[in-house]
Amino acid sequence: MTIFNTDTVLERIQAALNFNDLDTAIRILEALRPSDQAQVFDDLDDKQQISLLPNLTPSVSADILENLDEADAAGLVNAISHKTAVRIIDQMEPDEAADLLGDIQPQNAQNILDALEKPEEVRPLMLHPDESAGGLMTSDFLALRRRMTAGDAIIAIREWQPDSEDIYHLLVVDGEGILCGVVSLRELIMADPDTWLMEIMDSDVITVPAGTDQEECARLMSHYDLVTLPVVNGGGKLLGVITIDDVIDVIVDEATEDIQRLGGAQPLSKPYLNTAILAVARSRIGWLMLLFVTESLTGTVLRHFENELASVVALSFFIPLLIGTGGNAGSQTTSTIIRALAIGEIDIKDGLLALWHELRVGLILGLGMSLIAFIRALTWGSSQGLALTVSLSIFTILVWANALGALLPILAMRFKIDPTVVSGPVMSTLVDATGLFIYFSVARLILGI
Amino acid sequence: MTIFNTDTVLERIQAALNFNDLDTAIRILEALRPSDQAQVFDDLDDKQQISLLPNLTPSVSADILENLDEADAAGLVNAISHKTAVRIIDQMEPDEAADLLGDIQPQNAQNILDALEKPEEVRPLMLHPDESAGGLMTSDFLALRRRMTAGDAIIAIREWQPDSEDIYHLLVVDGEGILCGVVSLRELIMADPDTWLMEIMDSDVITVPAGTDQEECARLMSHYDLVTLPVVNGGGKLLGVITIDDVIDVIVDEATEDIQRLGGAQPLSKPYLNTAILAVARSRIGWLMLLFVTESLTGTVLRHFENELASVVALSFFIPLLIGTGGNAGSQTTSTIIRALAIGEIDIKDGLLALWHELRVGLILGLGMSLIAFIRALTWGSSQGLALTVSLSIFTILVWANALGALLPILAMRFKIDPTVVSGPVMSTLVDATGLFIYFSVARLILGI
Repeated sequence: MTIFNTDTVLERIQAALNFNDLDTAIRILEALRPSDQAQVFDDLDDKQQISLLPNLTPSVSADILENLDEADAAGLVNAISHKTAVRIIDQMEPDEAADLLGDIQPQNAQNILDALEKPEEVRPLMLHPDESAGGLMTSDFLALRRRMTAGDAIIAIREWQPDSEDIYHLLVVDGEGILCGVVSLRELIMADPDTWLMEIMDSDVITVPAGTDQEECARLMSHYDLVTLPVVNGGGKLLGVITIDDVIDVIVDEATEDIQRLGGAQPLSKPYLNTAILAVARSRIGWLMLLFVTESLTGTVLRHFENELASVVALSFFIPLLIGTGGNAGSQTTSTIIRALAIGEIDIKDGLLALWHELRVGLILGLGMSLIAFIRALTWGSSQGLALTVSLSIFTILVWANALGALLPILAMRFKIDPTVVSGPVMSTLVDATGLFIYFSVARLILGI
Repeated sequence: MTIFNTDTVLERIQAALNFNDLDTAIRILEALRPSDQAQVFDDLDDKQQISLLPNLTPSVSADILENLDEADAAGLVNAISHKTAVRIIDQMEPDEAADLLGDIQPQNAQNILDALEKPEEVRPLMLHPDESAGGLMTSDFLALRRRMTAGDAIIAIREWQPDSEDIYHLLVVDGEGILCGVVSLRELIMADPDTWLMEIMDSDVITVPAGTDQEECARLMSHYDLVTLPVVNGGGKLLGVITIDDVIDVIVDEATEDIQRLGGAQPLSKPYLNTAILAVARSRIGWLMLLFVTESLTGTVLRHFENELASVVALSFFIPLLIGTGGNAGSQTTSTIIRALAIGEIDIKDGLLALWHELRVGLILGLGMSLIAFIRALTWGSSQGLALTVSLSIFTILVWANALGALLPILAMRFKIDPTVVSGPVMSTLVDATGLFIYFSVARLILGI
């Protein structure tokens, strides 16, 4: 096998489309693997996409829509004819179809839903929010009865002929549809064909209710090394199944969102280069402005200490150095704590423990840096008093920044706010004004001004 | 099923151990799921761990060692007797055993390896670096011959009786062990028992060489929705298989490392609360010191413009505001770009495109923020000239910060440096000194000082 090169394939398809040779373009595209089809298709421009999509094999179009970005897929469905849309969506996985229909105009979605072959598979999935277990699960699964034999189960699987998602584990339910166990295909093969499923199934199944947050589903599947996670209602009735491939996307997307938020920006809903510059700017301007207003406090602090500044002008030389170092330390702490919270290494109840951890780290860092700052100030020709001021300030600022960097994300989580609001930029900004206050207070004390 | 509460179980085990009631402690621990066993075991102190581990069922001890942090597992193996270590490691997955043996004292590892039941399964895996496909793969797989029938294959699976990792796809090799296809268990069941495997197998298999970086393996498995990824040598010979559960750990760990680096700290090798405060401090002090030295440049710039500062003291009030905002914008850009690079949304060759994208975003943000800054400066009672200076400076600084934030990570990648070195703190620090220079240059120009 070869991992193909997207670029040359893309160029060949574009060349074919430029010559209005739709057949060649289709042939090249359909020869690719599903994930690559979507990637190449995504790089075509809107007009090319709209002309190509209705002419592809419906199952290929369905795969492409499943792998495209949500907003792009919705835009395409709104742009193609009703008949074509129904033909394609009929070939999609029910969970993907439900997500897609939730993203297009409601009236259009209703019309398409009514025209589908099996609307009853899609409709219940539309009730759940996208980011919940219910939104992530598929209803396209085979539930076996516990009073079936292993041999009957194999016959049922042969007849079911699932086409799209691979099955790894088979779910076993009772007469009321209550989930009572899980059996792997391997166990089914190894068992005597006359054994009851209830004898070979594993009845200790990890399940989630439909309302569970997708991050929690991902955490469970990763912690317990699961490839399927059944979703049940309050009474234990089997509603659907979450598969590992969907959860990997969740893990990657959640990390992307966290990183963008930690950088001080709202997460982007589309891949970076596909996001219009106005949308990128919009994702950032809110925080920039809020932080600007907060940062204005630094001006207030500086004006408050105007006399001190005028009498010892050299004090101002160290301002960026001190608050910059404090911001850096705060940013280090906050990113470590937020990630530890996200992957469950620490919990709200570990808050005081984490604070204590960071206070001690801050003491060590503070001691080290204050020594360096003292020497640096002296080599810059500062007086011993000024050097001592700088040194003591940086120590205090570092301990303060570390404590704040540990405390704020945990407090945010406590009040059910996403801890990533305490991003690096937020920490720097908070430490700037408070750090200045610490600096000038120490200066007053030591220099007697 | 219930997701159990770790804390109460932990307390009960600790209470039992305090009463020297080893049997009760073992009974409670062994009743848990493997992943939970490791989590609870990890929370015991070293002495409790060392007394408990040799007395557990060897397969349970093996599961625990597989799920523990690498350094902790290695420490335990070094602490228990040779005989116990061999008994436990014999029960581990070959890939996990190889990783573990690579982490303990070489002589000790050699002695254990020699005493294992199947050293030939573990030894070749020890040749590969931990973070490569070879280090991630297991050699414990069943390779079917392509001249086998589906019926024979099912018999082979029954006889093989793999105990630990689930099998989802079966690999088909020719007489020389060259991988020639893959067949799913479902296809095997659905096929006529007399069909040759070569007729039902899918011969278009995605594979990787043993040296492939684990991040690339994760990217491939996530892109192509794979649950198994075969590893081959240069001649196409099947060496091992990477399974999806190992790759999820890679995805989570790599995101954690990136977030810690983006916060300006070296990644921690252990979970946060298990990392000694000296180790946490060590992971941060390097960057703090390097950035401190760089940040010293701000002092040099300020001293260079000492006269301007003395003649218009009000200039200093805006210093933290201007460089803070520039640092925030740079941090926003750099985290977005680095994540886009990490998940393959952009590539080195998209460098100029990303720069152009960010330059325009910077222009928009710069226009918006310069307006706000102008008004803010006037309401602080600054002269129109000073307000214009602040406004024009913030515009220039924002465009500059966005360009730098896009360019530096891509340049780093170009020179094969991890782009996360351009963390938020690095961006803030770089923008601080250059931003001051911009500010005072604009002030000279406009205020004529």
